[in-house]
Amino acid sequence: MNESLLQRRYRVIGKNAPLFYDQPLELVRGEGVWLYDSDGKRYLDVYNNVPSCGHCHPHVVEALAKQAATLNIHTRYLHENVVAYLERLTALFDDSLSMGMLTCTGSEANELALRMARHASGNQGIIVTDGAYHGNTEAVGELGTGFMPESAMTQRVIGVPAPDSYRGLPGVAAADLAGAYAQRVQQAIDTFAERGIGTAGILICPEFANEGLLYAPEGFLEDAVARVRAAGGLYIADEVQGGFGRTGEHWWSHQAYAAVPDIVVMGKPMGNGHPLAGLVARGELVESFSEWAMYFNTFAGNPVSSAVGMAVLDVLENENLLANAVSTGAYVANGLRALQEKHELIGDVRQKGMFFGLELVTDREQKTPAGDIANDIINAMCRRGVLISRIGEHGNILKMRPPMPFYPEHADLLLAALDDCLAEVQL
Amino acid sequence: MNESLLQRRYRVIGKNAPLFYDQPLELVRGEGVWLYDSDGKRYLDVYNNVPSCGHCHPHVVEALAKQAATLNIHTRYLHENVVAYLERLTALFDDSLSMGMLTCTGSEANELALRMARHASGNQGIIVTDGAYHGNTEAVGELGTGFMPESAMTQRVIGVPAPDSYRGLPGVAAADLAGAYAQRVQQAIDTFAERGIGTAGILICPEFANEGLLYAPEGFLEDAVARVRAAGGLYIADEVQGGFGRTGEHWWSHQAYAAVPDIVVMGKPMGNGHPLAGLVARGELVESFSEWAMYFNTFAGNPVSSAVGMAVLDVLENENLLANAVSTGAYVANGLRALQEKHELIGDVRQKGMFFGLELVTDREQKTPAGDIANDIINAMCRRGVLISRIGEHGNILKMRPPMPFYPEHADLLLAALDDCLAEVQL
Repeated sequence: MNESLLQRRYRVIGKNAPLFYDQPLELVRGEGVWLYDSDGKRYLDVYNNVPSCGHCHPHVVEALAKQAATLNIHTRYLHENVVAYLERLTALFDDSLSMGMLTCTGSEANELALRMARHASGNQGIIVTDGAYHGNTEAVGELGTGFMPESAMTQRVIGVPAPDSYRGLPGVAAADLAGAYAQRVQQAIDTFAERGIGTAGILICPEFANEGLLYAPEGFLEDAVARVRAAGGLYIADEVQGGFGRTGEHWWSHQAYAAVPDIVVMGKPMGNGHPLAGLVARGELVESFSEWAMYFNTFAGNPVSSAVGMAVLDVLENENLLANAVSTGAYVANGLRALQEKHELIGDVRQKGMFFGLELVTDREQKTPAGDIANDIINAMCRRGVLISRIGEHGNILKMRPPMPFYPEHADLLLAALDDCLAEVQL
Repeated sequence: MNESLLQRRYRVIGKNAPLFYDQPLELVRGEGVWLYDSDGKRYLDVYNNVPSCGHCHPHVVEALAKQAATLNIHTRYLHENVVAYLERLTALFDDSLSMGMLTCTGSEANELALRMARHASGNQGIIVTDGAYHGNTEAVGELGTGFMPESAMTQRVIGVPAPDSYRGLPGVAAADLAGAYAQRVQQAIDTFAERGIGTAGILICPEFANEGLLYAPEGFLEDAVARVRAAGGLYIADEVQGGFGRTGEHWWSHQAYAAVPDIVVMGKPMGNGHPLAGLVARGELVESFSEWAMYFNTFAGNPVSSAVGMAVLDVLENENLLANAVSTGAYVANGLRALQEKHELIGDVRQKGMFFGLELVTDREQKTPAGDIANDIINAMCRRGVLISRIGEHGNILKMRPPMPFYPEHADLLLAALDDCLAEVQL
């Protein structure tokens, strides 16, 4: 199946462009939380957060089509849409985050955040958590400690262990974990001082999503940010995965903590699949950066993208999708905990709104990562018509992050499939 | 007029985000080569190359709307569109340029090209022409010699004078110009060798568009590329402005020269305003890079963007817009040369297909740049309902680059308005 399309793809894109699953899927249609392949088979999408409002949401598609038929032009002319969108967007943040800059991708937004933080601080050093992914440009690639090639070539990025209440740090008691993780941030600050480049900021995903949807020990984030600020650096929250209500309780995952960022980066779900990303920041940072850098982006903030961005906010609000992330999120989490009682393989269940992590281990005491089994399970789930993926240093954490209109009826399908697949692999 | 929208924009975007014209225009509608402001006034668009098929072209809008209502998903699943689009796109290039990688913006595409060239060559040094603009990320910003802040901080980019048959180099005879410019490329290669970083490539816009739509002395480009290749570097052609048939005679501006690039970067007109960009390259470069970098771009190459890209190619082909760039382009150039006979201010007329540069000088002998006058003229043209801009180191070169369905009837309006405005400023 699809042999020919796959071969054609190899010829023009190459064999190293990533594809999901042992048998790649050819998808042809999407609607809500459902995807359909070229054989008409239906899949429950429990992976894709980009189509946050649901695949092909009619309100978003209509906004896109209508504005594209009216005018699509750059921001060197005035247009109502980009202004109205940024007014509406900044209103969802702390008052200090008063201005925005739009881009087309999260990589571009993180580029801007890095340039802005380095310009504002006069320093170069950026602290990140190991195992996080922030994008694919050279400077942003430096942030992918341990797996992006540029990260091995730079002296201006230091990775610290991601704060992990499940695994902790060797020889550190649970009560001391927050301080121990914050101490690693301090060591990075000290190293940048020794290198003579100073600390420009800490850039983190407050959901610690790619690291495994980790629960950070209480107090760590505030402690780390305080240390970075004392060194003259900025706090940059990467909300590319955690933003736009994914966590349910808040619009932005950083709002679960007391510390208010200086810059917040957004992406993936912002346009429900349309290339739309950006940042909000303290106004003086935007003004000072824009004067220094003469920043302009040909496509970003155009009337079509801005109309799409507004339509996404409409849907999230009108369909009460944040409240649903809380209620259905809790429903799924309960189901996952019930599976944990039944399946030894589940070492830890983690949930933040409509985002779920299931850490698989072959030994609960030793917490031995079950990466190969996780791979078997996501492929088995796919054959069963449920799309999920895996994350974490060892690839042993099931990543489940469906479109937001995901309701208990869908959760029941997910939980039943997981139950079956977990039973299968343990035979 | 628009005081309130402008003030609102200042509050959420800041005062330093660039705006055209002394009195910024609020545009609300576009169709073909026409734009309409909020008072219903009509403007002939002789500036925007992004809406290459014409503003809001119905075929492109329909492709966008239809695919957006069907499926929009990333390239980790198989989809016909991205494969079909890249097959069609690579067929427009030399056979050696057999693979493509899609991005959302030209900046992202140039980032990829830089990472690819540095990885493939094992060297770091990149040669660019002064006055060119290639994008807004940190690494790409380094290429903006003389005006992007990062360009002043780097040792791995050297700017050489853009080859300019009109102004030349001091003390160099016209017959020796090509060699003299190529010698500057050699000096850059030698400097990179001295710095111990080697030459990774030369990255140029073969139209020399931002530099002033310059005519390069014959033989320069081939000589420069040969020298770079002898040093182990690659030839990267930035076709963000010159591509997609803008020059009329060819699909790509580099095809006016004998040298075939190793990497070709594309952007702006690729999606008629939809965020779509990318590169094509020698297959082995793409394979080797993708393996090394684990490159993935969430939005790029999605079925919607790919459908839009194909629709743009449809329009360019079905409406014979390359042939029109040749014929109407020549018609405009004739008109501009007639204006040159009448107006002392016009020092040089340059045309490449549907792209026009008019170099304004206060003294034809001294070639004294008339930057302020050029600014007066673009504002006067705007009041008269014709949109153009200016480029070049001194901002004295009128830049005219309309959507491709620009016909003699539109050219007559442009030429009449220019005639009037040139007469006005000389009074």
